[in-house]
Amino acid sequence: MEPVIQRVRHKVFWTLYRTGRRSHSSYAEPAVTAASTCTKKMKAPLLVSRLYQPSNLRDLGPDNRIQGEFTCKSQRLMQRAGLIHPSNPGCYYYLPATVRSMEKLVRVIDQEMQQIGGQKLDMPSLCTADLWRTSERWDLMGKELFRLQDRHGVSYCLGPTHEEAVTTLVAHQTTLSYKQLPLLLYQITRKFRDEPKPRFGLLRGREFYMKDMYSFDVSEEAAYETYESVCHAYTRIFARLGLRCVQVQADTGNIGGKLSHEFQLPADIGEDRLLLCGSCSFSANVETMVSDKTDCPQCKTGTLTESKGIEVGHTFYLGKKYSEIFNATISNAQNKPSIAEMGCYGLGVTRILAAAIEVMSTDENIRWPGLLAPYQICVLPPKKGSKEADATDVAEELVHAIGQSLPHLRGEVVLDDRTQMTIGKRLKDSSRLGYPYVVVVGQGALEKTPRFEVICHQTDEKMFLSRDELFSLLGKVEII
Amino acid sequence: MEPVIQRVRHKVFWTLYRTGRRSHSSYAEPAVTAASTCTKKMKAPLLVSRLYQPSNLRDLGPDNRIQGEFTCKSQRLMQRAGLIHPSNPGCYYYLPATVRSMEKLVRVIDQEMQQIGGQKLDMPSLCTADLWRTSERWDLMGKELFRLQDRHGVSYCLGPTHEEAVTTLVAHQTTLSYKQLPLLLYQITRKFRDEPKPRFGLLRGREFYMKDMYSFDVSEEAAYETYESVCHAYTRIFARLGLRCVQVQADTGNIGGKLSHEFQLPADIGEDRLLLCGSCSFSANVETMVSDKTDCPQCKTGTLTESKGIEVGHTFYLGKKYSEIFNATISNAQNKPSIAEMGCYGLGVTRILAAAIEVMSTDENIRWPGLLAPYQICVLPPKKGSKEADATDVAEELVHAIGQSLPHLRGEVVLDDRTQMTIGKRLKDSSRLGYPYVVVVGQGALEKTPRFEVICHQTDEKMFLSRDELFSLLGKVEII
Repeated sequence: MEPVIQRVRHKVFWTLYRTGRRSHSSYAEPAVTAASTCTKKMKAPLLVSRLYQPSNLRDLGPDNRIQGEFTCKSQRLMQRAGLIHPSNPGCYYYLPATVRSMEKLVRVIDQEMQQIGGQKLDMPSLCTADLWRTSERWDLMGKELFRLQDRHGVSYCLGPTHEEAVTTLVAHQTTLSYKQLPLLLYQITRKFRDEPKPRFGLLRGREFYMKDMYSFDVSEEAAYETYESVCHAYTRIFARLGLRCVQVQADTGNIGGKLSHEFQLPADIGEDRLLLCGSCSFSANVETMVSDKTDCPQCKTGTLTESKGIEVGHTFYLGKKYSEIFNATISNAQNKPSIAEMGCYGLGVTRILAAAIEVMSTDENIRWPGLLAPYQICVLPPKKGSKEADATDVAEELVHAIGQSLPHLRGEVVLDDRTQMTIGKRLKDSSRLGYPYVVVVGQGALEKTPRFEVICHQTDEKMFLSRDELFSLLGKVEII
Repeated sequence: MEPVIQRVRHKVFWTLYRTGRRSHSSYAEPAVTAASTCTKKMKAPLLVSRLYQPSNLRDLGPDNRIQGEFTCKSQRLMQRAGLIHPSNPGCYYYLPATVRSMEKLVRVIDQEMQQIGGQKLDMPSLCTADLWRTSERWDLMGKELFRLQDRHGVSYCLGPTHEEAVTTLVAHQTTLSYKQLPLLLYQITRKFRDEPKPRFGLLRGREFYMKDMYSFDVSEEAAYETYESVCHAYTRIFARLGLRCVQVQADTGNIGGKLSHEFQLPADIGEDRLLLCGSCSFSANVETMVSDKTDCPQCKTGTLTESKGIEVGHTFYLGKKYSEIFNATISNAQNKPSIAEMGCYGLGVTRILAAAIEVMSTDENIRWPGLLAPYQICVLPPKKGSKEADATDVAEELVHAIGQSLPHLRGEVVLDDRTQMTIGKRLKDSSRLGYPYVVVVGQGALEKTPRFEVICHQTDEKMFLSRDELFSLLGKVEII
């Protein structure tokens, strides 16, 4: 049998796109460096017709129904838009647009965690029963742990969280000095939890992405300072995403420790009940309140009102709970080993995505935190055979020019080439998918001074802009 | 209990670094956008003393030994340098420098996969037994599958590969048109395989990262063209990494299908035996050869010689094996459903990292593919109290100036602030860790026309450069 690989013909992708033949480079990413041997002079645009969103609008029957049972808005909208597809209970395929959005969210989280000194590592999913027995959580976690045995009969769980794993790692280093503190280690990995009732799409799954960070300090005071800095970083993340997030005092659950806060997005679908004071900053999860009274325990004068929330982050001040068990020590200023003071800090990555869609979207139309939209801009050329059809070339040229003049937007612009459909129909699609900016290239584009209709889905604004005005507007779009 | 979070003091991180107090921003990433509320005017440099590399050189005893049993060079070097730390058999902690390197490799792979039209998704690790029984691999895979049951007694495996999962996903879309082809879906996720003998560090693990891509075409001819384009992309990836990679014909194993190639890095530690022709391009895995003869079956004149190789990639032309089982169809040009012609294409992500270190390093010193080095540049200030100590400020200013003048290098420069150690000792460390560029700021930096000693570990060159020459050299460093 001979190798099938003889030579690869270098194709002029752009020409192929224009002549309607298959194009290998339709999804080419922007950042191909000089060293890449396949940088083309002119990149083919990203075409809506080629994006893999299999359950999306154009696959629906006339009654707009797709399969599946929906327990909340974000699940319905995400599934209908081809962002996710159900697999096993509580497990989803994250389709390409979701992966793009999640990668952007990961970059935001990475920036803020590294800004406060976080260092990113990656711990195994397979955790031995022995490790979890040491902390007594092997029994404590009950059915929520996915458990398995390897070919030698050794028992493991699939890590839902990694206090044991990270503490034993740090304990292994005998020379960790107080000068290296605070030590902040985090990972953004897939976690597993055998939820009794997986539901609400990505909000309560059995397999999900979580950012989990662990802090190590030499004193309680320093550990509290670290705890504060992480909470502040969380607040910054939600602010950058444009999400209103409430930080409430919370129960420490089976993670253990002395102090805990949840980061909650107020939403009717939320499974947590929060009490918020109308007069001061007091806020708490109902679980933590001993009395049924509605008087605020902090300011004494305000009244507590109840709200539902989606928990998107959780912080714990752990103290020495795990470090004592695993003997994680730090050489203190006197050069003596001192048991580390720890904290742990979770953020639900896939949950934040779904929760953002839950709280921002209308019943019919997805709205994204601007930073996280899978694509920022959708350009709509006119319908084939319509009287504006001459503007098709203008649309294609526009996509190319945006990439040339505004390099930060490369890879963020899609061309809705489904020109067998009317502009109106495609506009409706674009509204449902929630591109932050939709540029309609119609009759106005053919005028002496071309004008473009721009719809901003974040603000529901519509405007007619000259080419210069359009580029000036798009130049301000923030990309992560 | 009151919330501990009241306000966070904005610190002048740079000042704190200089005064030796704790700095939360020591590891700050470069790409903090304008919207971030915590952009500082002057970023603190990345300090070697703060990088988390717990088993690294400075933790060794005088006999240079660290715990563990080493089965190959890359494992020994990576563990000794604090790049990885052993967990369960075949499972490793990937420490921060490894995560940085892996993220760079993922970006190279993303670029090349997207360049040929690949779209990235993310499939669940938990795959039902039912799904795998449909393809008959539930029994066929035997003990290599990690198997478990959920709380309801439903059986799952942890996916080592995802032909079943992706084919059933594509089969679900009833309206996939031949115009959307080739459909190339890929993911870069953690995979699980219960290896009988996990060994060689990241080369043969039980938990590892793999890029797996799956292609769907409407005809055998188109599918072969797609197969070629993926193989060519693989060749480009290894070329960009500076790795000599041989593409050999291979056995199809339990994945099945008609045609298969392996991408092998020639190395003595390799577990595969390859036959390469001295006269033509013929190359094959010994497994695929029916006869023991050493005559080349392709050119008939050349002689085959044996070499060992590390398999870093594997491609399979699957034909209709899975698409027939799951009924994955495509609407052809006649608008009739046609069973998809498939291919699947793997790249061992963590394995490529370790294999690159295996083939590029010396016995004592790690050498990276330039693009994948965790940090590109290490700046060495003089020893504290030495006669060149005045150059310390120059070193710190240099790190800052590199970030200012060469923004693409931000986050890629570390300052080896362990000034209690001699330059010589730190130079030795830097050689072991394999920073591509080491800049020694010594006596020469204090001269009227400052000069810097630069060591290029990729080429083993050493040179003395003026500031302008240094910036000109560093300006050419390619970053992914």
